[in-house]
Amino acid sequence: MTELGPGKEFDTIRRIAAALGAAATELGDDCAFLSVGGEQLALSTDSCVERVHFRREWLTLQEVGWRATAAALSDLAAVGAGAPRVLAALTVPDRSEAEPLMAGAGAAAVSVGGVVIGGNVTHGRELSLTITVVGTVKQPVRRSGARPGDGLWVTGLLGLPRAALQTWLHGGIPAEPARRKFSHPEPRIAAGQWLAAQGASAMLDLSDGLAGDAGHIAAASRCRLEIDLGHLPIAPEVRAAAAASGQAAEPFAAAGGEDYELLVTLPAAFNSAEECLRKTGVPLTRIGSCLASGPAAPPGVILLTHGQPVELRGFDHFA
Amino acid sequence: MTELGPGKEFDTIRRIAAALGAAATELGDDCAFLSVGGEQLALSTDSCVERVHFRREWLTLQEVGWRATAAALSDLAAVGAGAPRVLAALTVPDRSEAEPLMAGAGAAAVSVGGVVIGGNVTHGRELSLTITVVGTVKQPVRRSGARPGDGLWVTGLLGLPRAALQTWLHGGIPAEPARRKFSHPEPRIAAGQWLAAQGASAMLDLSDGLAGDAGHIAAASRCRLEIDLGHLPIAPEVRAAAAASGQAAEPFAAAGGEDYELLVTLPAAFNSAEECLRKTGVPLTRIGSCLASGPAAPPGVILLTHGQPVELRGFDHFA
Repeated sequence: MTELGPGKEFDTIRRIAAALGAAATELGDDCAFLSVGGEQLALSTDSCVERVHFRREWLTLQEVGWRATAAALSDLAAVGAGAPRVLAALTVPDRSEAEPLMAGAGAAAVSVGGVVIGGNVTHGRELSLTITVVGTVKQPVRRSGARPGDGLWVTGLLGLPRAALQTWLHGGIPAEPARRKFSHPEPRIAAGQWLAAQGASAMLDLSDGLAGDAGHIAAASRCRLEIDLGHLPIAPEVRAAAAASGQAAEPFAAAGGEDYELLVTLPAAFNSAEECLRKTGVPLTRIGSCLASGPAAPPGVILLTHGQPVELRGFDHFA
Repeated sequence: MTELGPGKEFDTIRRIAAALGAAATELGDDCAFLSVGGEQLALSTDSCVERVHFRREWLTLQEVGWRATAAALSDLAAVGAGAPRVLAALTVPDRSEAEPLMAGAGAAAVSVGGVVIGGNVTHGRELSLTITVVGTVKQPVRRSGARPGDGLWVTGLLGLPRAALQTWLHGGIPAEPARRKFSHPEPRIAAGQWLAAQGASAMLDLSDGLAGDAGHIAAASRCRLEIDLGHLPIAPEVRAAAAASGQAAEPFAAAGGEDYELLVTLPAAFNSAEECLRKTGVPLTRIGSCLASGPAAPPGVILLTHGQPVELRGFDHFA
C-alpha cells in the first residue's frame, strides 16, 4: 500500500490493508483507480457523521449534504480528476430529512460540473452520510511523487473551519467567512486539474490538518517537507480565533482539520500562482520545500517558526 | 426516473429525484450506469446499520462485513454485471472493530471474484457500513423490460432470512440454514450474468420482500405480474418458522425481506432451470407470468393462493 504518515487512524488503515491481503488492491491514496476501456477512473468514499463531524445546530440539512459531498469531491480534486459523479448514501432518523440532505449533495455536485447518479436512504438513530465519488483522470497525481527541490504549495486559506469549530464549541457564533468555509467547502476540482497539468509531483487534500497530512506526502514520497509556518495563508478571522484561545495563528491553522484545500508539490521552477488564481479562481501560496531524506534525516515534516522547528499534532476524529 | 412500486420508502426516492432535478441522472434502478471508454459500468451504494438491519448479538463482526457487502454486490447481480470492485465505508464506535468488518467485506468480494479497492473508517456511536460496488456490464438488465408472456422466475430459496429474524426476535436460536442465509447471503453475480445471457427482460434483487419488489418490475415495465404463491421455493425451516407464528409459509416468505435472490422475467420459451443450476450452482424456479396491463387492469402484482388473489405488505425499514 501507499505509505502513510504516523497516527492511530493510519495504523488502523495499515492493519486493515494487512488483514485484507489479496482481497484488496493498493490502498492508502486519496482515491482508488480503475482502468476501464482505456480510461482511468478515480473513486473515493467518505463518511460524515452527526456529533462527530458536525452538530445539527450548526448547519442546515442542505449544508450538511453540501459539506459531506464537497469533502468527498475533494478527494477527486486531490488526484487531479474531473467529471465528477456522486452516489449519496443517507442514514436518517426521519425520512423527511433525506430530501434537504440530497438537495445539498446535488448542489455541491453541480457546483463542480458533476451530477448525482445514485444513492440510498436508510433509517438510523444517528444522522450520517457516506458519499462516493467517481471521476475521470488522465494521469493521476499520487502522494508518492514529490522530489527533493520541489516547492510545496497550498490552495486557498487555512484554519477557517477550525476557527468556526472552536467558536461553536465555546458557545459563540462564528464570523461569517469561518462559518461559510465550514458549511460550504468548495471542492478544488478545477484547481486540482490545473495543478496536475502544471506538473504537480504529489498532491492531497487537507482533511486532517496541514501538519499531519503533509506527513502522508513525506511518507509516500520518502522525503522531508520543510514548512515555514510564517508563510501559511491565514484569514483575519483565524488570527482572532487563535488569539481567543491563546495560540498563535499559524500553529492553530496548521493543526486544524477539514480545510479541504490542496497541498501540492510542484517543480522548483513553478512560479504561476497568479495564473492559478486567474484560471481557477483559487489562490496558491508557497509554504515550503521538499528536501531529500537519508539515514540521518528520515522522511517527515519539519515545521518552522522564525526558523525554529516546532511540534504539532494532527486532527484525529477518534482522539 | 425509473417507475417504482408503491411504498413510503419509494415515495421518499420519488421526492428526492424531483428535488434533485437536473442535479441527478436517472434514479431508481438497482444500479447507476456510466459509459466509460466504450464500456458500461454499473454502480450501487447500500448501507447497513446496527439495530436497523442487524443486532450485534446475532452476528460476528466478520459476518456483519460479509452481509453488508453481499447485499451491495447483489445490486450488481440484479443488472447482470460482473468484475465487482468494492469500496467499504465503516462507521465504528471503536477503532478495533474496523479490521474484522473489513475482513468480512473482503471475503464477500473475493467469493465472487471481486476485490476491495478503497474505503473509509470513521468514528460514530452507531455501527454502520456503507458499501459501494462497481462492476462492468455489456447490456444491463433493467427493471423496465418485462413483456406480456414472459415467465417470472426466482433464484434460490425464499424466506430463510425472515425465519432467522423472527426466531431471534422471539429469543430463540435460528436453525442453521436460516442463520447462514441471514449472515452469509451469496451474491448471485454468476447467476445474474447467466440470466442476462439467456435474454432476461427484467431483473432485480429481492431486498424488501418478493411481493413489494415484484411491484417495481410491474411499475417500471407497466405490466401485471401474476405470482402463484404455491410455486415459491421454500425451505423446510421457513415452514416451521411460519407455523410458529401462525402463518402459512408462502405469504410469510413473500413478505420477508433481505433474501438477496434474483427475481427475473425470461422469454416464455425459456426452460433451462437445470442448466442454471449446473452452470451457476443456483436453483431457478418459475413462480408466475407477466401479463399485459390496460385501463381495466393497471400495472401491479397479483398474488394467488389456490387460484385466489391475496394481499400482502412489503418490508420497510422505517415501518
